[in-house]
Amino acid sequence: MIKVVILGSGNVGTHLFKVFKNNSQINITQWYSRNIKDINQYSKSVKTTDKIKDLDDADLYILAVNDDSIHELSALLPFKNRLVCHTSGSKSINELNKNNRAAVFYPLQTFSKDNELDFTKIPLCLETENSEDMITLKSIVKNLGCKYYEIDSNQREKLHLAAVFVNNFTNHMFTIAKTITDDSSIDFNILKPLISETVNKIYKLDPIDAQTGPAVRGDDKTINKHIQDLKSKEHRELYRLVTSLINNLDNEKL
Amino acid sequence: MIKVVILGSGNVGTHLFKVFKNNSQINITQWYSRNIKDINQYSKSVKTTDKIKDLDDADLYILAVNDDSIHELSALLPFKNRLVCHTSGSKSINELNKNNRAAVFYPLQTFSKDNELDFTKIPLCLETENSEDMITLKSIVKNLGCKYYEIDSNQREKLHLAAVFVNNFTNHMFTIAKTITDDSSIDFNILKPLISETVNKIYKLDPIDAQTGPAVRGDDKTINKHIQDLKSKEHRELYRLVTSLINNLDNEKL
Repeated sequence: MIKVVILGSGNVGTHLFKVFKNNSQINITQWYSRNIKDINQYSKSVKTTDKIKDLDDADLYILAVNDDSIHELSALLPFKNRLVCHTSGSKSINELNKNNRAAVFYPLQTFSKDNELDFTKIPLCLETENSEDMITLKSIVKNLGCKYYEIDSNQREKLHLAAVFVNNFTNHMFTIAKTITDDSSIDFNILKPLISETVNKIYKLDPIDAQTGPAVRGDDKTINKHIQDLKSKEHRELYRLVTSLINNLDNEKL
Repeated sequence: MIKVVILGSGNVGTHLFKVFKNNSQINITQWYSRNIKDINQYSKSVKTTDKIKDLDDADLYILAVNDDSIHELSALLPFKNRLVCHTSGSKSINELNKNNRAAVFYPLQTFSKDNELDFTKIPLCLETENSEDMITLKSIVKNLGCKYYEIDSNQREKLHLAAVFVNNFTNHMFTIAKTITDDSSIDFNILKPLISETVNKIYKLDPIDAQTGPAVRGDDKTINKHIQDLKSKEHRELYRLVTSLINNLDNEKL
């Protein structure tokens, strides 16, 4: 059994608690939150605390807290030379205080508190200061049945940037599309099968080869009509910019 | 049995041929292509021709050709007052010559010739000049088991514009992400579960409520680091623009 203490009661902390709790090889010895009210509902199934001085002994301490709290919280830990990881995509392993053995356990997924996720589908990006500690992280990941990747802090920063494009910016493309359909009293649901197929394609094709539409065809008539149809100046600017990027990629390929 | 003639041997024409051929209620009386070589392989299962003057009698003629060929091809049809539709998302019903009864049969999906698609999942956008002709189009769609929507030419233009955002531009977000991961020797596959979950969320949440990430959090530290990390001037410009759009949306909500 691997003994784990979770620190933090946000989306990631709560998801980790639930998935660890259901795993026979992982023992959550304690759950810490500075807002004890957030985790009171779980106090029958786990020892909870809001006192950093009272942390129990464990094989791994997971700091599932806001990016900006990692540094400070890791410095407050009342012990030395234990294995301590954060779960952030954008922070370096060096964000953790040097009193303990630093590591990163970054689940690359978009978490909402209410949303049930199949954790086995989530890739885990792992990094450790010491190679022996990697064995501990890997054994947790294997127990969960997840895929894992050894990713250093520099790569993880780039991966997080790429994640912003495929998740945050893609979601904003959906938001703009919904503005357009709402404005013309069109049911946004019509677009959902197209959205699903857009994603299915990346499992079969390199995205550059999956590109279709007026930009890649150089269909200026449609492009100009679309730009005229967009009500917002920023949306017109975005349409022009992405169209020119798609168009240039195509030229580079030829 | 509804008698149909397909004109055009591109992606849409070929997909329609295959799905109609498998349907007992639809009889493809003929398949026309000006490049007869493209459809020769099907000549055992359907009457093919490259002579517009030789078109047989049918209940519906489907012009599955390039947007810019619709007008000209519809004017070359050697008959009058028959039901003729195009399959374009961006062209008005008025693009069709007035000699015949005009209609639109627009399957809202991204087609690749090799890609097998479940046609029952594709929404069909229907429009007819005469209300009786809508009955013919609806009976075809019902035979195929597809969802359909009555969408006029003005709405279809807006829908096509929205489709550019959810399909073409979204796919380009994936292309940019792959540039970033490739540049740092990161396996692009790590991002695929995140991409799938991004899309799963729109089946549960309005995209504006599904928005996460540094832009919506106003996390300027991460935003500035990301902009520094981007190598291309256009990618930096795009990052700034989408970030400011996400940020403004949030302010509008508050």
